[in-house]
Amino acid sequence: MKVGIINVTGYAGVELARILARHPDAQITSVTGRSAAGQKLGDVFPHLSEIDLTITEEITESVDVVFSALPHAASAERIGRALSDGVKAIDISADFRLKDLAVYEDWYSVQHPCPENMEQAVYGLTELHREEVSDANLVANPGCYPTASIMALAPAIDAGIIERDIIIDAKSGVSGAGRGLSLKTHFSEVNENFMAYSVDGHRHLPEIQQELELLHSNGSLNITFLTHLVPMTRGILASCYAPLKEGAIASGPDAKDEVRDIYDNFYKDETFGKVVDAPPMTKHTLGNNDCVIYPTVDTRTNRLIVLSCIDNLVKGAAGQAVQNMNLMFGLPEDEGITQLALYP
Amino acid sequence: MKVGIINVTGYAGVELARILARHPDAQITSVTGRSAAGQKLGDVFPHLSEIDLTITEEITESVDVVFSALPHAASAERIGRALSDGVKAIDISADFRLKDLAVYEDWYSVQHPCPENMEQAVYGLTELHREEVSDANLVANPGCYPTASIMALAPAIDAGIIERDIIIDAKSGVSGAGRGLSLKTHFSEVNENFMAYSVDGHRHLPEIQQELELLHSNGSLNITFLTHLVPMTRGILASCYAPLKEGAIASGPDAKDEVRDIYDNFYKDETFGKVVDAPPMTKHTLGNNDCVIYPTVDTRTNRLIVLSCIDNLVKGAAGQAVQNMNLMFGLPEDEGITQLALYP
Amino acid sequence: MKVGIINVTGYAGVELARILARHPDAQITSVTGRSAAGQKLGDVFPHLSEIDLTITEEITESVDVVFSALPHAASAERIGRALSDGVKAIDISADFRLKDLAVYEDWYSVQHPCPENMEQAVYGLTELHREEVSDANLVANPGCYPTASIMALAPAIDAGIIERDIIIDAKSGVSGAGRGLSLKTHFSEVNENFMAYSVDGHRHLPEIQQELELLHSNGSLNITFLTHLVPMTRGILASCYAPLKEGAIASGPDAKDEVRDIYDNFYKDETFGKVVDAPPMTKHTLGNNDCVIYPTVDTRTNRLIVLSCIDNLVKGAAGQAVQNMNLMFGLPEDEGITQLALYP
Amino acid sequence: MKVGIINVTGYAGVELARILARHPDAQITSVTGRSAAGQKLGDVFPHLSEIDLTITEEITESVDVVFSALPHAASAERIGRALSDGVKAIDISADFRLKDLAVYEDWYSVQHPCPENMEQAVYGLTELHREEVSDANLVANPGCYPTASIMALAPAIDAGIIERDIIIDAKSGVSGAGRGLSLKTHFSEVNENFMAYSVDGHRHLPEIQQELELLHSNGSLNITFLTHLVPMTRGILASCYAPLKEGAIASGPDAKDEVRDIYDNFYKDETFGKVVDAPPMTKHTLGNNDCVIYPTVDTRTNRLIVLSCIDNLVKGAAGQAVQNMNLMFGLPEDEGITQLALYP
Repeated sequence: MKVGIINVTGYAGVELARILARHPDAQITSVTGRSAAGQKLGDVFPHLSEIDLTITEEITESVDVVFSALPHAASAERIGRALSDGVKAIDISADFRLKDLAVYEDWYSVQHPCPENMEQAVYGLTELHREEVSDANLVANPGCYPTASIMALAPAIDAGIIERDIIIDAKSGVSGAGRGLSLKTHFSEVNENFMAYSVDGHRHLPEIQQELELLHSNGSLNITFLTHLVPMTRGILASCYAPLKEGAIASGPDAKDEVRDIYDNFYKDETFGKVVDAPPMTKHTLGNNDCVIYPTVDTRTNRLIVLSCIDNLVKGAAGQAVQNMNLMFGLPEDEGITQLALYP
Repeated sequence: MKVGIINVTGYAGVELARILARHPDAQITSVTGRSAAGQKLGDVFPHLSEIDLTITEEITESVDVVFSALPHAASAERIGRALSDGVKAIDISADFRLKDLAVYEDWYSVQHPCPENMEQAVYGLTELHREEVSDANLVANPGCYPTASIMALAPAIDAGIIERDIIIDAKSGVSGAGRGLSLKTHFSEVNENFMAYSVDGHRHLPEIQQELELLHSNGSLNITFLTHLVPMTRGILASCYAPLKEGAIASGPDAKDEVRDIYDNFYKDETFGKVVDAPPMTKHTLGNNDCVIYPTVDTRTNRLIVLSCIDNLVKGAAGQAVQNMNLMFGLPEDEGITQLALYP
Repeated sequence: MKVGIINVTGYAGVELARILARHPDAQITSVTGRSAAGQKLGDVFPHLSEIDLTITEEITESVDVVFSALPHAASAERIGRALSDGVKAIDISADFRLKDLAVYEDWYSVQHPCPENMEQAVYGLTELHREEVSDANLVANPGCYPTASIMALAPAIDAGIIERDIIIDAKSGVSGAGRGLSLKTHFSEVNENFMAYSVDGHRHLPEIQQELELLHSNGSLNITFLTHLVPMTRGILASCYAPLKEGAIASGPDAKDEVRDIYDNFYKDETFGKVVDAPPMTKHTLGNNDCVIYPTVDTRTNRLIVLSCIDNLVKGAAGQAVQNMNLMFGLPEDEGITQLALYP
Repeated sequence: MKVGIINVTGYAGVELARILARHPDAQITSVTGRSAAGQKLGDVFPHLSEIDLTITEEITESVDVVFSALPHAASAERIGRALSDGVKAIDISADFRLKDLAVYEDWYSVQHPCPENMEQAVYGLTELHREEVSDANLVANPGCYPTASIMALAPAIDAGIIERDIIIDAKSGVSGAGRGLSLKTHFSEVNENFMAYSVDGHRHLPEIQQELELLHSNGSLNITFLTHLVPMTRGILASCYAPLKEGAIASGPDAKDEVRDIYDNFYKDETFGKVVDAPPMTKHTLGNNDCVIYPTVDTRTNRLIVLSCIDNLVKGAAGQAVQNMNLMFGLPEDEGITQLALYP
């Protein structure tokens, strides 16, 4: 299988290259990048020097599938061209995640360059849309925060045990902000510092809302989603809170067990959705494709608390993209993404 | 004014020494520590080498005020002795913070060694109890998380604009866990990692509950309080969420301004309670005694969001202790704690 | 091939487990640990939960090869027993690295518990002793600093282009200090801090000296070796300095090319010894088995400068141990250790 | 005393503002910055919000002294204007540090914009040039690396105990690279990474060479100076190596004592040059103006080793600049710079 990576020079792109370089059934045959065009991939990223490719402006080979790690808007346009050429596409950007064009254009403040492809796009949170992904030509790979947040809350919403008032307090390592320069990612500003950001509303909220409401039998959800920057490179932890529906589950200590059973059952056949016995830490996901989920109950207040962790560049981007590619091409879902977490 | 520091070798103790060494009206005359007894303070802590004192087992000088930075239970016992000797005392431990003995003994799983002094103890969140602190012989210095959380929520509760359902998602640097060794504070375990801890209930919850309920006109509060460990040394950020009471304030964008006015007004005469125009970061408090507070409204969900930052060792421990000492001795409240944040 | 890991709970042990869990020809069948005995490996290390083994006090299975990640002295004793049972052994500790018993006992301040096995031990810096490793029953896996330092200087010494006056200024991430608790590895002490340590002499010096002198045609070397602690988890960078022998190579800018040719030639057939065109960074080796080497010349002073990087837990410990195992069992040298560096 | 800060928005400039805001005899009356011109200082740097000044393009007040924290070349030009106006000037840039115009123009690849002021400029390493600084109108504040390196080696060179072959292996926190954006200071690139940089020659070398040769009785020095980037914000540690001159001091263990005496004596009257008994760490200087120096001898190789630490933004920039200002205006040398290190 020949694979092209558009915008290999961002962190999602370079992580795709790392993963695909060891994928038994994929071969990277073309990689693009604007500012680095003309350079050898291994000169820009020495850890990839074994991949003997020159970065080009455009995909130069005929490929079976293309991953786009471009910024939104730019991505949709290129994806459109690939689809026209009969190439399957996985879009790491936000362009095809939202089903409602108006919501997209409102949150992203651009006109969608390629709305005609929105309908065929499948939201690629694999665990929730496995069948559709298998049949898709275009997969919209989920955002990093949505992956952690949706996987944390889906079982509870699906089981109907929580009220609609949800708080997601999410924390991410700095690589989530990308490789582009900014004072907000300048080492001396971020290091030894902790802050909230996008306090007036983060673009990942509508995506979370859309997917969780699909599972919610009873109208809209009332979600507050707040993001924070952790002085580390990789990892997301989402802390999710919601009131338990009165009478929906046992009260007291049994509540924890009952919630646990619901989660175990929801993810019982999953390779990467892991329900665990103790509060997780992001380090347990460093470099792997897991989403580690710990559901519990604050029995003092009768609230559900769910903690979930992912590596934002793996399950939150490149790893899940490869998971989706595997499904689209009938390969084992975990092929090429079985790496264990790097600890410590 | 002669000052003694009990257990100078913990992080709160050594921070007290740093601050008091530059305090114009205080002189450290005796410092204690168990394992380091017999050593020069400057040999254990080279940055304090100008303080020419030997660490002893017990306070060796007659002093005007004693700070105890001992662990709970051990602290109350020593404080009791100081008070009997007519020495004023500021307790950095949790021993005298809770008014209800049963709550203390339940959360701390010990018998209180000195309950007879509980009644005279003043909870030393200075901004809320200034008058009582001024008259006190015994001040219970607040915990670090409670300082940030209570200051974040007090204005809203006092103004009666929020419902009783409160989520406090708090994040702390590692120095909050103290200088004692543990795998949980081992560098390679904490670095490049983010996790929640004390998920079943953190001991600072009853303290937060007690103080906020004092301000709440209408019965008990339903608080979920969850703590997280940030891979940095100093700093706390608390993200606080609560539904706005219907009709209590304007809806829509005006809500933000109205909330802001309530906060501005609450802290208008304060030196260290600073309401700010933009989401704060912990770095703005590095080494200073400020509590920086940013109140806003999630207008999509009609929830109050308040972000607050402190340096856990200054406003969250040693700095506030000195602020309280200043009041107890009739000194200007900010004497010795005017240091600006170290940036970057 | 059945593999046992003695002391799996240290960082070298747990890294061995991570690597061997994905090795196509090895199966971990027994893991030991003292304090964690009786626990499931996956409960202590959640990222290894797929390995279904209980930690035991002693190796419980008959195995083909045993890795010991015990501290020195304790290690030799266990290794001795394994060898008696006809099991091949790879010792991650320092017990069999030094050829001279007196030097060992002097630097490690213990009596060697198993000197009878010293002679058969092969120093397992694979690139220098490949043939002997292939035939060995006992491999002494090199220290992390020695691996980086020896690989940096071996080509120059072998080519006879430098004088005997060598300075090795080495810097390591904190995982090199192990998983044992100490104030020196306490997060708040190490973070945002940089220091030299073992200034009076680090135990890795005699090992470096022994191996480099084997390559030195002309008597002893005069090596100063100073180690520093970097506030990061993994990675070593060694900066090595030595005067160029007068007339040994061209002077001026050509010196750099000539030195580069010597290094290229020395490592031309190596998978893991990589001579590079630009100064390396430890991140290029994060999680991989490479030793990345950059030789250059300070043409102002006519000194050789060599910079080398490794991941201290991979090429500096577990990865090189597996590389040696592969050779001992006739497998491809890179089997199971082809992981690319995790970037960023 | 009225003070102006040119380019307050860089890290040296903002650190000057922090220090001067608490200086008893100085008042900041004008601050400049290009991109931030028109903004309130406290809006750009919230920790300085008590300083009620607007950033302007040019110094707007008549001032007694001006600090320039501009980049080189730009700085000299502005300094020239200030001097013409009869204002004393302290230049944090490199423009007036080198006595030899050709050396400056060679290393900095620019034509010096203001060579006529070079002669009157005093190199402001205060401990070495106190008298001249006191009389100066123009002080060239030393670079951060030179401050640490020169103070480490000056006593040994002055005492004539070392040969001319010197290696300085220096390590710096990232704030030394300034507030300007670059991939080299991008958080995800620097964090968990360690590297050498400017391997072909760092601009601070000629400065070190110039000052140490002033102390060297016997011709030129043969210095290799290599810089490394530490993943932390503040702090420099310089590890310096040189062969002891044969017969110059005792051999064996006594050598250490003799070297120590030489250093003690050299710095015996100094406030900020501190010779210490144990290897120092950068954290001992966090936020203070100390240069902490540990001289010792590698008795195996008869080499002097000196370790020195500073905070690169304090003794390495703004703190030393204020120390020089104090001397220039007849104030106590330590006024305003007595802050203790922030630990942990």
